[in-house]
Amino acid sequence: MTTNQSDITLQQAQTVVDACMRRAEEIDLKMNAAVVDAGANLKAFNRMDGAWLGSIDISMKKARTARYFDMETGDLSPMVQPGEQLYHVEFSNDGLITFPGGIPLKLDDGTVVGAVGVSGSTVDNDQTVAEAGVQAFESAPK
Amino acid sequence: MTTNQSDITLQQAQTVVDACMRRAEEIDLKMNAAVVDAGANLKAFNRMDGAWLGSIDISMKKARTARYFDMETGDLSPMVQPGEQLYHVEFSNDGLITFPGGIPLKLDDGTVVGAVGVSGSTVDNDQTVAEAGVQAFESAPK
Amino acid sequence: MTTNQSDITLQQAQTVVDACMRRAEEIDLKMNAAVVDAGANLKAFNRMDGAWLGSIDISMKKARTARYFDMETGDLSPMVQPGEQLYHVEFSNDGLITFPGGIPLKLDDGTVVGAVGVSGSTVDNDQTVAEAGVQAFESAPK
Amino acid sequence: MTTNQSDITLQQAQTVVDACMRRAEEIDLKMNAAVVDAGANLKAFNRMDGAWLGSIDISMKKARTARYFDMETGDLSPMVQPGEQLYHVEFSNDGLITFPGGIPLKLDDGTVVGAVGVSGSTVDNDQTVAEAGVQAFESAPK
Repeated sequence: MTTNQSDITLQQAQTVVDACMRRAEEIDLKMNAAVVDAGANLKAFNRMDGAWLGSIDISMKKARTARYFDMETGDLSPMVQPGEQLYHVEFSNDGLITFPGGIPLKLDDGTVVGAVGVSGSTVDNDQTVAEAGVQAFESAPK
Repeated sequence: MTTNQSDITLQQAQTVVDACMRRAEEIDLKMNAAVVDAGANLKAFNRMDGAWLGSIDISMKKARTARYFDMETGDLSPMVQPGEQLYHVEFSNDGLITFPGGIPLKLDDGTVVGAVGVSGSTVDNDQTVAEAGVQAFESAPK
Repeated sequence: MTTNQSDITLQQAQTVVDACMRRAEEIDLKMNAAVVDAGANLKAFNRMDGAWLGSIDISMKKARTARYFDMETGDLSPMVQPGEQLYHVEFSNDGLITFPGGIPLKLDDGTVVGAVGVSGSTVDNDQTVAEAGVQAFESAPK
Repeated sequence: MTTNQSDITLQQAQTVVDACMRRAEEIDLKMNAAVVDAGANLKAFNRMDGAWLGSIDISMKKARTARYFDMETGDLSPMVQPGEQLYHVEFSNDGLITFPGGIPLKLDDGTVVGAVGVSGSTVDNDQTVAEAGVQAFESAPK
């Protein structure tokens, strides 16, 4: 028997991106937000006017990293320090990002159906805006 | 003296992507649509549910190619055939796409402020959907 | 409405590169200098006779990094150390450089219109030479 | 005994680039011009205001291709056609360009000391502008 993978829709993905954009505007930040699906492939992306160009790739890599390992990118930070178990894991997968701003998108039963990645400011701000995206996902019909 | 480059906004870019998604739905296609700005950097992207995964990169490369040379990607097709002048130009720039589906976004005076790239079906369908994006851009406030 | 992005001209970019070359000669260094425009695309580049070959790419990456995040590359150094917030951000964007030698080029109102990157000696020397480029930009007609 | 490789200087390389820029202006074109040295490493580069962004890479690849094989890139065109001996050689070296616009820079005795690559218009125009660069090299003190 094949398995059955729940997956995020474009409508949900764009809802997440929209929520990130709105939250960034509220707190006067310029952000890039990316959402990948269950297969870690890009589903939706937005870059605000004047947002850092270098954050296009970082937001996508955060989303992908979060889905690659089904955990928040910030949770990887301690594991990748010198001497720690995943030191230099960023060399794999054409580049990972292991600081905050990437969060898996999960169903109520914990199934990961995608991830959001946000970049454009401090990692605290990136995380805040990514969390707004997650909240929008959790509030939307599933 | 510095020059002055008009540039597409996120609102305009998402309007273009939305129009591509709507047009694709109308004609029952599953598409990827990407918009880049004047600097050829990604601004907005959407992938419809069930659209080809391989078209994520192709739609982005179409948009970038259209801005790289300020012409429709389909206009490059005859020039890159065996024996023709730009044969194998696709090996440059980490990969170009030289078949239809990428179109520059221009102001009324001809200034290129970005480009749209669409991929997910035949090149004729890709081009049709990209043109819907261009029309939406031209109808929106500039 | 489209936005309006001021951009560096080739004349300004070459003025910056020339100033870097002159300063490097004065203090007997062999340097590579690169200038990118507002879209982070290369505008002008020079490598002095005998300058390190490995610094071609580094000077370009410094310029690009400075424009990608609108800050001096040296300002990123403390943030990317082990345990710090942007640890290993260099794995993004096909490689960033986060030590001194890359500086944004700004108009008087703070608008970033490009960046210069210099590489070929110690980072202190690289920075000194990059600053000569910035001064030349600021003294030139804008 | 080691050998002795004659090599282009930065002054000569920038003279070549300047001549390309002047010729392009005269015939109202917007060009990218790159010069590599005897080691096929970039020495000087300029992009005119409004020149195609996709031609940054193409001009560099033309210069590199011309030095890689010590022949004009246009001379490679017939050899890379389907069924011909070098079919798909462009796959090598991270991408070659095999249409006109790249020309080796030679001493009077035929020694290749570098190459110029030009891109930004039709291949005929690219070649014309590259030839202006070669002429400037041949007229300059060697």
